[in-house]
Amino acid sequence: MTGSAPPAAKERQPRRMRRPAGQTREDILNTAEELFRTRGYANAAIVDIAHALGMSPANVFKHFHSKASLVDAIAARHMETKYKGLASLDDNHPACERLLALARHLMASHRRDLEENPYIFEMILLTAKDDLRCGHRYRDIVRAALETIIVDGCRKGEFAPQDSARAAEAAFYALACVLHPIMIANEKPDILATRCEEVVRLINAALQTALDK
Amino acid sequence: MTGSAPPAAKERQPRRMRRPAGQTREDILNTAEELFRTRGYANAAIVDIAHALGMSPANVFKHFHSKASLVDAIAARHMETKYKGLASLDDNHPACERLLALARHLMASHRRDLEENPYIFEMILLTAKDDLRCGHRYRDIVRAALETIIVDGCRKGEFAPQDSARAAEAAFYALACVLHPIMIANEKPDILATRCEEVVRLINAALQTALDK
Repeated sequence: MTGSAPPAAKERQPRRMRRPAGQTREDILNTAEELFRTRGYANAAIVDIAHALGMSPANVFKHFHSKASLVDAIAARHMETKYKGLASLDDNHPACERLLALARHLMASHRRDLEENPYIFEMILLTAKDDLRCGHRYRDIVRAALETIIVDGCRKGEFAPQDSARAAEAAFYALACVLHPIMIANEKPDILATRCEEVVRLINAALQTALDK
Repeated sequence: MTGSAPPAAKERQPRRMRRPAGQTREDILNTAEELFRTRGYANAAIVDIAHALGMSPANVFKHFHSKASLVDAIAARHMETKYKGLASLDDNHPACERLLALARHLMASHRRDLEENPYIFEMILLTAKDDLRCGHRYRDIVRAALETIIVDGCRKGEFAPQDSARAAEAAFYALACVLHPIMIANEKPDILATRCEEVVRLINAALQTALDK
């Protein structure tokens, strides 16, 4: 047995070699997410995350200065995988239908997240005072998807010609009532479905006229 | 001196007479509001409110079964005095200007409340899971004000003829992004001012066309 040891040892990486910082970061995020899910956001401290990973809290702090920055990174990671290709949803359909499909898709996705992971609601409440980058990233992604659909709608003559970026921004905020987790967490699905339709109808009607003065 | 005592005693109400329940309720609300303001919402319990009033906690519970029901009553009282005559704001102006004035007025009022009484934000976060009647009351008041303006606008030919109640409901939700305390608490005033204008512009544009199918 000892005879075969040297080549195997050669192939193995040295034990003490540092893991790449990116991998450590991912490990921290995975563990933080798992602890938030199982214990609740308020009950999982950075020191618990470090403990679960067999790391020093200082090492976790080196990567994330606060729990809010952990939330930010978790949400960002979640978004990059989840909200890819939003604007291409049904892109052979009329623009007004695509706007409704987009709003419904996002609303359903947020509702599912809140139901499957109740800690998300607690996390959002407890970081409500923080200006997290993930909020801006979310807005950028959704606004871009709205803009793509509006540009298409204007090009095809469904919507009046207008500043599509500006219209997309207004539409994004008008949709907050059916997209923001705080606005949807405690609302009945059928009420939300109607609300979503009505607000999209409002947006679609607005896009029939030129929004720019 | 003793000679004049009997008539005075006759005029005075008997000491042990019960205060009307409505007055006790008001006293509880005043004290609760004061304690929430000075100690913060989370740090003032029903037992503290009872103590400050020299009442038994059971007596307070008889009027309010939970802290959430206190919040509900405080908010309701606040609204009745504050949001009277909303729709009559500038009622000689064009409907589209009145919609903007109404949205600005409400947004400014909510911002002032949050700034002057930071406990309100904490209170809203901590009751976010409760379906409070004050939320419905607020919606009814604002929706009615929006509807009055929309009806006027339709009558004067500024807006396309339509189901004003339905349009008011959609407009109310579209405005959540500049009216809901959670959506405005941490946003810069100039950003909110622009957002408010843009969303009202969207609503006004929508009202140029008939929203009903």
